[in-house]
Amino acid sequence: MIIDVHNHIVPEQFPSSAGRAAGKKWPYMEHIEPGKANVMIEGKNFRTVQSGCWAVPRRVAELGNQAVDRQALSPMPQLCDYSLDLKDGSDLAMFLNETILRMIEAAPDRFYGLGSVPLQDVDAAAKMLSKVKSMGLHGVEIVSNIEGVSPGDPRFIPFFKEAASLGLAVFIHAQHPTYMDRLVGHPMLENSIGFPIESALAAASMITGGVIDHAPGLRVLFSHGGGNFLLLLPRLNNAYSGQGPLKGTVKRAPMEYAREFFYDDVLFDNRAVRFLIDMVGVSQVMIGSDYPFMTRKQTADQEFTELKLTAEERELVGSKNALRFLGIGD
Amino acid sequence: MIIDVHNHIVPEQFPSSAGRAAGKKWPYMEHIEPGKANVMIEGKNFRTVQSGCWAVPRRVAELGNQAVDRQALSPMPQLCDYSLDLKDGSDLAMFLNETILRMIEAAPDRFYGLGSVPLQDVDAAAKMLSKVKSMGLHGVEIVSNIEGVSPGDPRFIPFFKEAASLGLAVFIHAQHPTYMDRLVGHPMLENSIGFPIESALAAASMITGGVIDHAPGLRVLFSHGGGNFLLLLPRLNNAYSGQGPLKGTVKRAPMEYAREFFYDDVLFDNRAVRFLIDMVGVSQVMIGSDYPFMTRKQTADQEFTELKLTAEERELVGSKNALRFLGIGD
Repeated sequence: MIIDVHNHIVPEQFPSSAGRAAGKKWPYMEHIEPGKANVMIEGKNFRTVQSGCWAVPRRVAELGNQAVDRQALSPMPQLCDYSLDLKDGSDLAMFLNETILRMIEAAPDRFYGLGSVPLQDVDAAAKMLSKVKSMGLHGVEIVSNIEGVSPGDPRFIPFFKEAASLGLAVFIHAQHPTYMDRLVGHPMLENSIGFPIESALAAASMITGGVIDHAPGLRVLFSHGGGNFLLLLPRLNNAYSGQGPLKGTVKRAPMEYAREFFYDDVLFDNRAVRFLIDMVGVSQVMIGSDYPFMTRKQTADQEFTELKLTAEERELVGSKNALRFLGIGD
Repeated sequence: MIIDVHNHIVPEQFPSSAGRAAGKKWPYMEHIEPGKANVMIEGKNFRTVQSGCWAVPRRVAELGNQAVDRQALSPMPQLCDYSLDLKDGSDLAMFLNETILRMIEAAPDRFYGLGSVPLQDVDAAAKMLSKVKSMGLHGVEIVSNIEGVSPGDPRFIPFFKEAASLGLAVFIHAQHPTYMDRLVGHPMLENSIGFPIESALAAASMITGGVIDHAPGLRVLFSHGGGNFLLLLPRLNNAYSGQGPLKGTVKRAPMEYAREFFYDDVLFDNRAVRFLIDMVGVSQVMIGSDYPFMTRKQTADQEFTELKLTAEERELVGSKNALRFLGIGD
C-alpha cells in the first residue's frame, strides 16, 4: 500500500465574502471551464487549478494513475492564511476542515485528513484542535512561518503541546519566504529557492526553540523532505557539542530531534532522498506528490527500486511510516 | 599533497583609525596575552583569536598537526567590510592583501593567497583585481551578501567578468545572514543556521542572476560545501524544465553551473560530503578547515578512507582540484 502524505485540496467554492473584514483577501473560485478554476485572492488569480482539487471521482482516478492507494489531504497552503482576523481565519480554517471531511466521507477508504487552524491566535488554534480531532481528521497543516515568525518560536508552544496531547499530527508546509530580497531573477523562483529554505528554517526552529522538549511525542512532517534542512543539520548538531550555543538550551542533540521528525520524499532527485534516508533513518521518510499541482515523475515502486530498498523498507516508506505519522494503528 | 582552501588570517595589527571616516568601525587588535588577541570592531570584541592568524611559524607548525601541506590564505570574512566608505574599504582590502602577501613571502612553499576587494564599489573592486593579480595572489574572497544584496545580482557582473578575464579565483564565504528574525534561540545560531543558508542563497543567485553566462570560465568556491545549496539544487534545476521560470533567463540547466562551482568539504558530516560529491562530481570538492577558528576533526586521509575514494579521487580532492581552482599548473 502506498500512502501519499503531501498533496492538497482546494474547495470548489468558498462561502461568500459578504460582510467579512477580510474583504478582497477572502478567496473565491472563478470557474473558467469544466474542470478548471482560478483561485482568486486579493483580486488576482493566485493559481489556476484543476478539479482534482475538489472532485473526488477525478481525484480517485488520478490516484490510480500515480499508483497511490491513499492520500492524507491537506489544504493548498496559501489557504492557511494567518493574515486574516480571528473570525475570518477561524471560519476559513473550519470551512477547509469541513471540505476535507466531506471528501473523506465520499471515499473513506482513500483519504485521511490534515485540516487547518487559525494560528494567528495561538489559543484559538489550540482550541480548534479538539474540533479537528472530533471530526475524525488526523492532524493539521500549518505553514512555515506565521506572519514572519518561525513556528519554533516559544509563543506557539501551547499549540504544539495541545496537538501532542491530542495525538494529532502537524504537517509544516513551506510558504511565504521572508527573504525574497535575496533571490535574484524571476519571482517564481520563490518556490525553488525560497521554499526549501523555509522548511530548513522551520525545522531548525522547532529544535532550537525547544518545542519538542515541551511537546514530547509531537509528530511533525516537513514538506519537500525538509527542504534543505538536512544539510544544515550537521552544523546545527555541532552547536550542541562543547561550549556550543545549544548546550543547556535544548535537552538533546539536534540530530536526535531530526530523527523523530517526518519528511516526504518530494526532493526531485533520488540522490537527495538517499541522503535524507541516510541522515534521518528509513523510518521517517514517506511518499508525497504535491498533487494536483504536481504529479510524481516516478512511482513509489520505481523510486524504491532505484534506492535499493529492502521489502521491509518499502513497506515503511510506502505506508507504515505514514500510518505512524497519522497516529493510525498500533 | 593536501591543500586547504578554506582557512583565514587576521593581521597582528591594523593601521591606525586616526582620521578615518570609519571611526569605531575600523578594526583594531587588542593583544591580551602572548599568542592571543581580541579582534575589536565597533568597540566590541568580535572574536578572540590565536596568533596562528598572523604568525607564520605557528601556522606552519599547526599545518603539520592537521596533516595539511599548503593553505590558500583568505581574510577572516568579517574583515571584508562593505559597509565602510570607499577610501576606508579600499585601504582595508589592500592592507589585507599586503598582509597575506607578507605571510606567503615568509613561507612561499606553504601558502597561496586569496585577497580582498572593496565590493561596496563594483568598479573599484574590479580595478583592484589587477593589483591583486600583480601581487601574485590567486584570487579574492568576498562574502555571501554585499550589504544585503546577493552576489548574483546583475550589478556585480562587471566585477566577476574582470575576475574571469584575469583568471582570478573567487571564494564566496557565508556571512551576515539577513533573516536573523527567523532564527529562534541563541544569537550564535547565526553560524549554524544562518551561514549554510547564506551559501545556498549566494550560489543560487550566481546561477539565476546569469553571472556565469556573462563571466564564462569564472572559478568560484562556496564555503562549507555550499552550505545547504545542494539540497535546493534539484528543485532549482526543475525550474529550468518545461515552462519553468529559469527557461529563457539562463543559458543552461542549474545543475550544469553547480557542477562547475567548487566547494570545500567543511560540512561536519561525511555523509554530507558523500552527497556533495555525488551531486557535483569529485572534481569540484576540496579540503577546508576554517583554521584557526576551527580545526579539522579528521585528517583528509581519514576522510578519504571513510568516503572510499580511489587513489585518483584522493589526489583530486586533496590537491589537484585546489590547484585548478587557484589557476595553478596546467
